[in-house]
Amino acid sequence: MQYPYSERMSRIRSSVIRELLKITEQPEVISMAGGLPADELFPVEEIKRAADAVLSGDNAPASLQYGPTEGYLPLRQQITLIMNDKGVACSPGEVQISSGSQQALDLLARVFLDRGDVVLVENPTYLGAIQAFELFQPKFVAVATDEEGMLPEALEQAIIINRPKIIYLVPTFQNPTGRTMSLERRKRVAGIIERQQVLVIEDDPYSDLRFEGEDLPLLKSLVPDWVVYLGTFSKTAVPGFRLGWIVADEELIGKLSICKQGADLHTNTLVQHVLSRYLNDADIPGHIKKIRNEYGRRRNAMVEALEREFPSGVTWSRPQGGMFLWVQLPAGLDTESLMSKALLEKIAFVPGHSFFVNGGGQNTMRLNFSNSSPDLIEEGIRRLARLVNIQQGKDSSPRNRMESIIKG
Amino acid sequence: MQYPYSERMSRIRSSVIRELLKITEQPEVISMAGGLPADELFPVEEIKRAADAVLSGDNAPASLQYGPTEGYLPLRQQITLIMNDKGVACSPGEVQISSGSQQALDLLARVFLDRGDVVLVENPTYLGAIQAFELFQPKFVAVATDEEGMLPEALEQAIIINRPKIIYLVPTFQNPTGRTMSLERRKRVAGIIERQQVLVIEDDPYSDLRFEGEDLPLLKSLVPDWVVYLGTFSKTAVPGFRLGWIVADEELIGKLSICKQGADLHTNTLVQHVLSRYLNDADIPGHIKKIRNEYGRRRNAMVEALEREFPSGVTWSRPQGGMFLWVQLPAGLDTESLMSKALLEKIAFVPGHSFFVNGGGQNTMRLNFSNSSPDLIEEGIRRLARLVNIQQGKDSSPRNRMESIIKG
Repeated sequence: MQYPYSERMSRIRSSVIRELLKITEQPEVISMAGGLPADELFPVEEIKRAADAVLSGDNAPASLQYGPTEGYLPLRQQITLIMNDKGVACSPGEVQISSGSQQALDLLARVFLDRGDVVLVENPTYLGAIQAFELFQPKFVAVATDEEGMLPEALEQAIIINRPKIIYLVPTFQNPTGRTMSLERRKRVAGIIERQQVLVIEDDPYSDLRFEGEDLPLLKSLVPDWVVYLGTFSKTAVPGFRLGWIVADEELIGKLSICKQGADLHTNTLVQHVLSRYLNDADIPGHIKKIRNEYGRRRNAMVEALEREFPSGVTWSRPQGGMFLWVQLPAGLDTESLMSKALLEKIAFVPGHSFFVNGGGQNTMRLNFSNSSPDLIEEGIRRLARLVNIQQGKDSSPRNRMESIIKG
Repeated sequence: MQYPYSERMSRIRSSVIRELLKITEQPEVISMAGGLPADELFPVEEIKRAADAVLSGDNAPASLQYGPTEGYLPLRQQITLIMNDKGVACSPGEVQISSGSQQALDLLARVFLDRGDVVLVENPTYLGAIQAFELFQPKFVAVATDEEGMLPEALEQAIIINRPKIIYLVPTFQNPTGRTMSLERRKRVAGIIERQQVLVIEDDPYSDLRFEGEDLPLLKSLVPDWVVYLGTFSKTAVPGFRLGWIVADEELIGKLSICKQGADLHTNTLVQHVLSRYLNDADIPGHIKKIRNEYGRRRNAMVEALEREFPSGVTWSRPQGGMFLWVQLPAGLDTESLMSKALLEKIAFVPGHSFFVNGGGQNTMRLNFSNSSPDLIEEGIRRLARLVNIQQGKDSSPRNRMESIIKG
């Protein structure tokens, strides 16, 4: 069978991460690859209670019926309160429910991107965003970053040269690097956005997962007119509900809604009712605090293991929140070939290369610390360090050194 | 704020039906507009039991976690059994779960349609399909139909002239007309597809809702290689779950999966687990029979009211299943202007014009009979007939004739 595929299919690739996840599903693999929250922390009991209340109530049939494309109004009202707490004033008419943030990216691409339009992204950037945008065949331009995010001069230059349709940013605990734009950087970037009048997508799945340091203002709160904000319940409640939201002005929300009609009519009604009930009845701040504490412990376990096990010449980020840590091996080492050896050792990570839209990053990798216990993280980093040491040509792993000391 | 919209946004329109639904949400309106199943027939208790079982079981955390893009494997296995009952042999690898059939249409459009590609559709055709396909700016070519579906000669001619990428068909209880392709027509169309080697999308949301006559073979069972089949749980279980499925060979399912990664990563995990449990534990044939019986009663109520109330010169379909009935007023009457008067009378329907991709059908309308009780249907048709009579310029409604007889 020779299918008459569309031209774009020749360019669209599967996400390395989604493919990796299939391999790493085997329980004996220590996976630092995926971006999965810790499912032992899921509020199962509270969700069950909420589901039971919804399905026992007078509104049960409505929770199973077709619903409005914009989303369930009470949930949109609750989201305006969440946004208010984050320093963003908005009305329910400025909130669109999406089937996860992934769909939000897809809807924004529909509304804005023609073939050849420029999208500015961080270097490296989130793979799911590349996948969503790629459908419409834009041109990606990567802006140089340092530990604090996009470099302001590089950003402004890139805007002037490329006149991008949109800038895509994950300002807080970025995927893949775990990096966060500092307050000063946010202000400078906000100034550039306002001056250059470019639309920004602020993708913000991780800022609630801060276990250290002070909250920083959202870009949306600094330049509200130029920023479309994306939020999600995937990291603070449960990802399986596929519930995210978009905050923008009513005109843009209207356009996104029309596109959503064609995409999936509307997001699952039942889980919108259940989540709304859960937000109402459960101790949300208490639950988020529990996640933060545990992720903080896991980040510590990973950083300590890296310090203990890894040879000099390897560097890593030390994020104050989120789920990822970014490792840079000495130039010349290749994390893709490392990965095939890692799978034999029953460990997994994501090679960094695929996060770079213009190539590069062969010596980088993304490590997830949210989905394994501190013990497993330690064991995983130990095995990984052994592989890195071997790959470096000199087997100087601590155990071997120890053995030679003992033998010596 | 002047947004830099994509070029396609200038052509994309909101669905008349979705807009209408907002107006008709007021409880006092008798709506024959939407395509909503009867929510008083939803299996609320059984869904609640299934949700409770899923959220109480060992798999509860997995039911709330990210899941595979292809869908929950046990559910895909159950779907292969459903397909088997319909005469289609397939494996779970040939099934992709979609967020409702609407998303299935969107994914197929991504995979196949380049700008200017031709899509053959029935005349009239389903509005949601137009909306999904329109994103990729194809050319729609409408094929003439009679009571039994597309005319074979017209279809073959259209294929030869236009070399379409895909043909989109709703062979059974079509939306909007309620029409069904006869057995003989299916065989002839199958022969044409095989001879001309064109890909067909068989959208089949309604065939389980047959309350009269004999089941007919799916096109997928007649020419399996050339047909992509779309099924849904929206009409036989609940629409709010947004759960549909696609059956195609593994190669095509692989392409659809890659596109789904970019669209929404995967469909809601919880409801896939819940529906799988529901299919396993509940009396599904019994439930579907209940729906069929009730929809049969409602169709009867509508047809009898039409016969009683409507003036001569008006014709309508008499579907043996599904949810819709198609009414044709005398030429010259305009259902769009009728609609604005109807809303004042607190009744609603969908003017037929928007289902015709090349214009026409101003004197047609779609009436839904699944979402109102027989009493409300009778009252709705009574009010509608009054408006039609007024619009026809001669107030010859039965009541008035009766009054003049009495007075005379």
